[in-house]
Amino acid sequence: MKPTLEIFSQGEEIVCGQIADTNAAWLSQQAVQLGFLVSRHTAVGDKLNDLVGLLKEISGRADCCLCTGGLGPTTDDLTAQAVAEAFDLPLEFDELAFAQIQDFFTRRQRIMPDSNRKQALLPKGAQRLDNALGTAPGFSVQAGRCWFAFMPGVPSEMRHLFAERILPTINKRFALAADRLITLKTMGIGESAIQELLRPIALPEGVAIGYRASLGEVQIKLLFPHGYPEQLLNLLTDAVASPLGDKVFAIDDSSTARCSDLVGVIDELMKRHQLRLAVLETVSRGCLGSLCLTVDWLLSSAYYQAVASGATVCDGRETMQHLAADLLASGADCALVQAFTDSQESFADRGQSTGISIYLLAPDTSHLAQHRLSGPPAHKQQQAALLSLDLLRRYLQGCLD
Amino acid sequence: MKPTLEIFSQGEEIVCGQIADTNAAWLSQQAVQLGFLVSRHTAVGDKLNDLVGLLKEISGRADCCLCTGGLGPTTDDLTAQAVAEAFDLPLEFDELAFAQIQDFFTRRQRIMPDSNRKQALLPKGAQRLDNALGTAPGFSVQAGRCWFAFMPGVPSEMRHLFAERILPTINKRFALAADRLITLKTMGIGESAIQELLRPIALPEGVAIGYRASLGEVQIKLLFPHGYPEQLLNLLTDAVASPLGDKVFAIDDSSTARCSDLVGVIDELMKRHQLRLAVLETVSRGCLGSLCLTVDWLLSSAYYQAVASGATVCDGRETMQHLAADLLASGADCALVQAFTDSQESFADRGQSTGISIYLLAPDTSHLAQHRLSGPPAHKQQQAALLSLDLLRRYLQGCLD
Repeated sequence: MKPTLEIFSQGEEIVCGQIADTNAAWLSQQAVQLGFLVSRHTAVGDKLNDLVGLLKEISGRADCCLCTGGLGPTTDDLTAQAVAEAFDLPLEFDELAFAQIQDFFTRRQRIMPDSNRKQALLPKGAQRLDNALGTAPGFSVQAGRCWFAFMPGVPSEMRHLFAERILPTINKRFALAADRLITLKTMGIGESAIQELLRPIALPEGVAIGYRASLGEVQIKLLFPHGYPEQLLNLLTDAVASPLGDKVFAIDDSSTARCSDLVGVIDELMKRHQLRLAVLETVSRGCLGSLCLTVDWLLSSAYYQAVASGATVCDGRETMQHLAADLLASGADCALVQAFTDSQESFADRGQSTGISIYLLAPDTSHLAQHRLSGPPAHKQQQAALLSLDLLRRYLQGCLD
Repeated sequence: MKPTLEIFSQGEEIVCGQIADTNAAWLSQQAVQLGFLVSRHTAVGDKLNDLVGLLKEISGRADCCLCTGGLGPTTDDLTAQAVAEAFDLPLEFDELAFAQIQDFFTRRQRIMPDSNRKQALLPKGAQRLDNALGTAPGFSVQAGRCWFAFMPGVPSEMRHLFAERILPTINKRFALAADRLITLKTMGIGESAIQELLRPIALPEGVAIGYRASLGEVQIKLLFPHGYPEQLLNLLTDAVASPLGDKVFAIDDSSTARCSDLVGVIDELMKRHQLRLAVLETVSRGCLGSLCLTVDWLLSSAYYQAVASGATVCDGRETMQHLAADLLASGADCALVQAFTDSQESFADRGQSTGISIYLLAPDTSHLAQHRLSGPPAHKQQQAALLSLDLLRRYLQGCLD
């Protein structure tokens, strides 16, 4: 049996919907990959009674609870006080925590406001978790059957504290057997078409399959139980990848913690082949360039309204060839050119689909791809950028011959 | 006393962290604006016992509960069954719901899988909430002190059902007195600098102030109790806006449901003045163009690596003037040019800040602004885009004279 884990978030900004609780999602992902059974997320605001009641509930029901928020210096930061009341662990002043908080301000040449003194009050017997990035130390306590870890709500501080201070303790306290997750990442094919292609594959007992679709990208997730034989795992992964052909741009494995994305895959290939790219972003309007933020093989990306609205662009392959050849003149080895194939008005209308062409000119080949985009304009824009990049990816992987 | 409301989400993909629960955030925002006191969010997976227990808990503790997920056709969609067990309301086959589900498939020329029949099973006495966008009807029940509304988890279907079917019922069932939220949106000034400027202002009893910072933009939120006198509200809003000067680009009012963004504000001004813009996105690399997705006054936006890495750009105002003048040659009335003022290497390093210049050339003026960007590359990129747009906004509002 896997140990159960709950996520508990404190903060009016979450309960009132000013922000989505991305901390809860991130922590759950970590917990699932570690081998916990995540059973519940709860978020409450800054009412002391709610907090106390909830902590008591969780202490009787979960083996581990990861908590964020409520550690700040202001009066609505009540987590330590709630823990003190719920588990009868009176607050005590922690000299070392206080010295660290003072030091935080000294290093920034700022005066510590009196309110920050409160952050050095920790429940009796709690283990302090030093926070290198902020003023609020985290802490952990065992209460009932549950080991609680309390972290700040600021995502960067939370992630840092989790990796540096909580993960090592979790590995010591819990006997975890992590499942293994293989994720096949595809572009240019829909979720239902994938399910149709994979229907003939019989899943072995104990292996689960799941799908996750975002703009343009569909992921197929294969979850194998801990200790599943490597050879059988590879066989099944191949059987799933094979019917999808060149639509698969990456296969990630949770045991190596590698997480690929399309730009990363292309980045590696462009560097290996020493190629440089120029792009005419008639449809994606900057989105492609914006995605290729830190690569050094993108020589230029541009949007021109005159080109976008020129009827000539719709004339098809020949015009796009000319535009692409012009781009190569700047020293690029590859050029991508986008054009609308029917009325541009449909682009702004979320109810209508928009036809586009994408032309790739490369050292040894050229290719024209056609697609229909749908959804709100921002979705269409991103689809156009990703489909253009994916055309380049398929060329680089030798799939366009 | 405001009625209390809880949010309840069902789905393994939420509990396991594959997606952040944006439905919960969106519904909470609606509820707060309607005048509910939102007290708790809970998410659980597809364990029937967890669901049943949670529904019972909520029925004794909240006046209203908005629920998403678990209405699909598959075996792990257990919401209706859990409601039936929790409140002793056996499932009954709803002929009208079934006809609508069949019709959904007929209109799409698809055969209805047998599994969808299950979606027509509703707890006895439940009110069906027709879903025009999908196969799963929502439903509502009163149980204990709590009125529950169950919606599909697909965000577009959920929002549609909420607006069309749930909102009217809520307005009938609950006596709500909505608070009034005034949001001042600023660009180009940090949260702590704002707090410093606003320190001398004494907040009247009952009025709350809050801050929310995202990339480049800081919002100041003034929450006034229902029925607060209009004149006093305007006085306080002015007192808060005044020390912030031209950093404020919009003031939104929850009573009109208007929600401004920087591009929208600029769009209105560019149309009014009949101006057209061309941009050299040396730093933001497409992000600015990508934000101006459906405007028709953006003539071009471009990134050129050669310009970005050319040492000449760092020479300052004169080079930027030339580049901007070249942009105007294409027929634009205004040009924005970005340049790095120190080493570009710092851009990719999240630990280092990067100095940039932004030059605006407009019919009757020119202006050079300097900034330092910090954080990971994608943050720096977005800051560069937003600060460039904000320079244009201040020109258009006559603040650069």
